[in-house]
Amino acid sequence: MKTISENRCFGGVQGVYSHASDACGCDMTFGLFLPPAAEHRAVPLLWFLAGLTCTHENAMLKAGAQGWAAEAGIALVFPDTSPRGAGIANAEDFALGQGAGFYLNATQAPWAPNYNMWDYVTDELPRIITAAFAVDEERQSVTGHSMGGHGALTMAMGMPGRFRSVSAFSPICNPTQSDWGRPQFEAYLGSVQAGESHDASLLMTHYGFEGPLLIDTGTRDPFASLLGTPAMAEAMATRGQPGQLRLQGGYDHSYFFVASFMRDHIALHAEALRA
Amino acid sequence: MKTISENRCFGGVQGVYSHASDACGCDMTFGLFLPPAAEHRAVPLLWFLAGLTCTHENAMLKAGAQGWAAEAGIALVFPDTSPRGAGIANAEDFALGQGAGFYLNATQAPWAPNYNMWDYVTDELPRIITAAFAVDEERQSVTGHSMGGHGALTMAMGMPGRFRSVSAFSPICNPTQSDWGRPQFEAYLGSVQAGESHDASLLMTHYGFEGPLLIDTGTRDPFASLLGTPAMAEAMATRGQPGQLRLQGGYDHSYFFVASFMRDHIALHAEALRA
Repeated sequence: MKTISENRCFGGVQGVYSHASDACGCDMTFGLFLPPAAEHRAVPLLWFLAGLTCTHENAMLKAGAQGWAAEAGIALVFPDTSPRGAGIANAEDFALGQGAGFYLNATQAPWAPNYNMWDYVTDELPRIITAAFAVDEERQSVTGHSMGGHGALTMAMGMPGRFRSVSAFSPICNPTQSDWGRPQFEAYLGSVQAGESHDASLLMTHYGFEGPLLIDTGTRDPFASLLGTPAMAEAMATRGQPGQLRLQGGYDHSYFFVASFMRDHIALHAEALRA
Repeated sequence: MKTISENRCFGGVQGVYSHASDACGCDMTFGLFLPPAAEHRAVPLLWFLAGLTCTHENAMLKAGAQGWAAEAGIALVFPDTSPRGAGIANAEDFALGQGAGFYLNATQAPWAPNYNMWDYVTDELPRIITAAFAVDEERQSVTGHSMGGHGALTMAMGMPGRFRSVSAFSPICNPTQSDWGRPQFEAYLGSVQAGESHDASLLMTHYGFEGPLLIDTGTRDPFASLLGTPAMAEAMATRGQPGQLRLQGGYDHSYFFVASFMRDHIALHAEALRA
């Protein structure tokens, strides 16, 4: 593992590291914030999964999470959103290929050799982080934004017991019914149907989530028609899933929105990660 | 004035606007955050002056100020750091020309027609803002980072009574003795001597500041030798200037540092701006 940078931040350290990834078959870069408490003990870990076009850097710079994580004694990890580099398959469309891994394991050419973000985020990267840093692998939670909110919700429901709590900012909730989902499932997995196990509304209908759950989405989100929030709302209500779906008046899809409610999300996860 | 963007943010609005500037002879862009309180009354205004290479955008995205400003009921303005555009004089050096206005009025060719950031920030932009938004021109304070810290300190001491409080993050404190100052004063003003009225340590020695004053600088700042912090420390101590100069252990020059202490800076200004 190579250290790209380390900056003192809210009494802790905001680091950026890179490493050769088996899952993705390329070098991968991630950000990791360690709170001051990590100097003395292993701390819980909150995953922040970013959205389309993002790298490890966007949320790390703009989500305003580190201050609240420092107070709560929680580490934050900011993975990249796809494999990346000159030798990696890509597409003209910003919503497919590099920057658009959709947190799944591709089965189709030309994506299959590298586009394995599900394995990368749920298996390889946690092992790398818990081996190298003062992080408690028994206490993990997950959040994310847009495509990363999709990743957070599908991982939390798809791996029962792995994450103590889940939250999302303007998540893609029903990708099997969306242009942010259908073309990607067809390309990466061969069919929309093959993506059903990566559809948060379907997972909510069939499985739900045991633990605190919070979703925030803005009422002025310009991508509202792509997110499928009504399907998730209906699935939560029908299931009787404990949790909060908050429609935030006047907010859009930007990191200004994410930062505005980060305090609430960190508080939810801190409570779940405490014990 | 043209609206570039407006995003809901911490219950208020983060806007970006552009306008034709008389002082700079070009179009200028600025960010303005209005807290929720501005819906009901004119609110106080805190200036954030940015550093070398920055535009209006850096602090707006990365300083983490909006949340605290929303709570305190304070507007934030993020001006650009120089005139900008194809027809504007520039230099190869990142520390001279566009992105490096040094918050002064240039007297020398080719800079004089456009590089008038002192007039722009202290006169033209405040008039534009107070005319168009619910901002109380009688209650203003100023902060900034690096070259913007220099701007904040020199404007606060150079215009007694104008700003109720002043703070700075890793400011350039003694530019007449620094490579971040001497070449710029020579280019913009014709001599280093002509820049003495823009040297915060000299202003501190001769005038001081009446009101709350806070300076934070990291002990691991890679630009320490260019900042002149010891000269400012000595000048404050010799004068008996009430105020705080804090050397923050382990912090560098980045916005991770700025964000880490933003809460304290907003609290200081909020207290001064309340009445």
